[in-house]
Amino acid sequence: MSTSAHQRPVIAIDWGTSSLRGARLGQDGQVLESREFARGILTVPPGQFEAVFDEHFGDWMHAPDALCLISGMAGNRQGWQEAPYCPCPAGFAELGQHLLWLQPGRIALVPGLSCMGQDALHTPDVMRGEEVQIFGALQLAGRDSATLVLPGTHSKWVQVQSGRVTHFQTFMTGEVYALLSQHSILGKTLDLNGAFDEAAFLQGVDQSQKAGSVLNKLFAVRTLGLFDRLPAAALPSYLSGLLIGEELRIQEVHPAQGAVILIGSDALTLRYTLALQHLGIACQSRGAEATWAGLHALASNLTNPP
Amino acid sequence: MSTSAHQRPVIAIDWGTSSLRGARLGQDGQVLESREFARGILTVPPGQFEAVFDEHFGDWMHAPDALCLISGMAGNRQGWQEAPYCPCPAGFAELGQHLLWLQPGRIALVPGLSCMGQDALHTPDVMRGEEVQIFGALQLAGRDSATLVLPGTHSKWVQVQSGRVTHFQTFMTGEVYALLSQHSILGKTLDLNGAFDEAAFLQGVDQSQKAGSVLNKLFAVRTLGLFDRLPAAALPSYLSGLLIGEELRIQEVHPAQGAVILIGSDALTLRYTLALQHLGIACQSRGAEATWAGLHALASNLTNPP
Repeated sequence: MSTSAHQRPVIAIDWGTSSLRGARLGQDGQVLESREFARGILTVPPGQFEAVFDEHFGDWMHAPDALCLISGMAGNRQGWQEAPYCPCPAGFAELGQHLLWLQPGRIALVPGLSCMGQDALHTPDVMRGEEVQIFGALQLAGRDSATLVLPGTHSKWVQVQSGRVTHFQTFMTGEVYALLSQHSILGKTLDLNGAFDEAAFLQGVDQSQKAGSVLNKLFAVRTLGLFDRLPAAALPSYLSGLLIGEELRIQEVHPAQGAVILIGSDALTLRYTLALQHLGIACQSRGAEATWAGLHALASNLTNPP
Repeated sequence: MSTSAHQRPVIAIDWGTSSLRGARLGQDGQVLESREFARGILTVPPGQFEAVFDEHFGDWMHAPDALCLISGMAGNRQGWQEAPYCPCPAGFAELGQHLLWLQPGRIALVPGLSCMGQDALHTPDVMRGEEVQIFGALQLAGRDSATLVLPGTHSKWVQVQSGRVTHFQTFMTGEVYALLSQHSILGKTLDLNGAFDEAAFLQGVDQSQKAGSVLNKLFAVRTLGLFDRLPAAALPSYLSGLLIGEELRIQEVHPAQGAVILIGSDALTLRYTLALQHLGIACQSRGAEATWAGLHALASNLTNPP
């Protein structure tokens, strides 16, 4: 009779596009030791993933009963091996069934999630890595239902009901912000070295809630600068408010669902917190600890690893 | 007693960011001769505008009563001289009063138009060069009221009533399309060499009219490719439909105002025509001839040049 999974030493790995992070977790999920390397999947040649893994975490795997779960882009087509997306609705049970075992019972890739739209093309949406953060944040918050937001290059809005992700949507907010501020005509008038300007940010949020299209509202970043309505150093904050506000504009968040849970860096969750509070929506934030909590919870829920 | 302006030889110049075009016009506005040079204002060092003008059009100005009107970015801060924007509402009378005479009675810069928003920041909008095309297209269509669209890098939607521009809005549609297709993650899955795909374009237009945000809909360009729902060669057309459709989504065009007038290149006006017709909005197109017609009409309406 095997010991149940949560009593085994758990090695949690978050292998993303640009970085490789790992943690050795204790019985209750506490981080005993962690490591981070600039070895994102983009730096690893095909066929070399196992070697890179052994080099950085091989010593942790010496324990004969170690269990390692790897989330993030390592399960992507360009990663260690493709772990097919697990379709929503999905919770711990579905994720556990869809693990891709690299070494049976010892090392597995956690699949991302997919969810299909109701439109004629059944437009898919996908995530990879965020699913673990979502379940970890819920665990830490002691909740099994919530609206969660994971701001970033490709921001995710996620609905979780009774421990399962039922629906999510990706917004290209962060990438569009970077493109516009660095490569568009708007970049000519705005000063990216300016400190975050809360008032200008909230003016952008306000403007984004009005009738019209963001494709038009964006042009104001140029003219407000040309006509000296806003200083160049405030324009990046105004642009950020316009884009984050556009993302928030279409959300329907019911107070009965409880506070929105934000997961991300301090700088980004601060902006979303300001915008959400400005629009009267309660929220709370979680950081990187959500990843380890999610992988630990997933390992603890694995009753029958192969 | 001076002859009225429209009997004088009219030299029409369109000096834009990347090109310099000129036409010598006959009594009725017909083009007697035209020239085009790769001498947009970005290629002209400060203080050299008059020399470049003389070099390319000096011979046309030998006629002692020649009248030259120059529209476009030459009147910009980085151009020959800054011709301050003429505030809307504006028609021929207002444009004529705001001409910036470089040589009194002989050579003038046509000012762009500005229009102020109703929001807290009174967000301005501006155009420079398009105003001449607008009045030219109306002249050619024999109308004095219309909704006009000038698609491009920064697409303009313009309301004209009784010969005066009453309101307009700029959309960053073309620039956002270029940034996303060339510099974003979407560029990794789409094939920019594909021919225009009308069906995929209209699927994008349909999708853009639905509830939600364009920041989310854009991400579908990636997933539709990853999940093989649309071929890579069709994705640029789908993206174009999403963005042009987003621009159209917020327009209120009343059939009583008559057909929408599109002014632009054949390739772009074709796409807008398809999208507008798909949404049940009648339209007609005008090309580069609108510029010469507009400058001729402006010259003809100058009753009292200085």
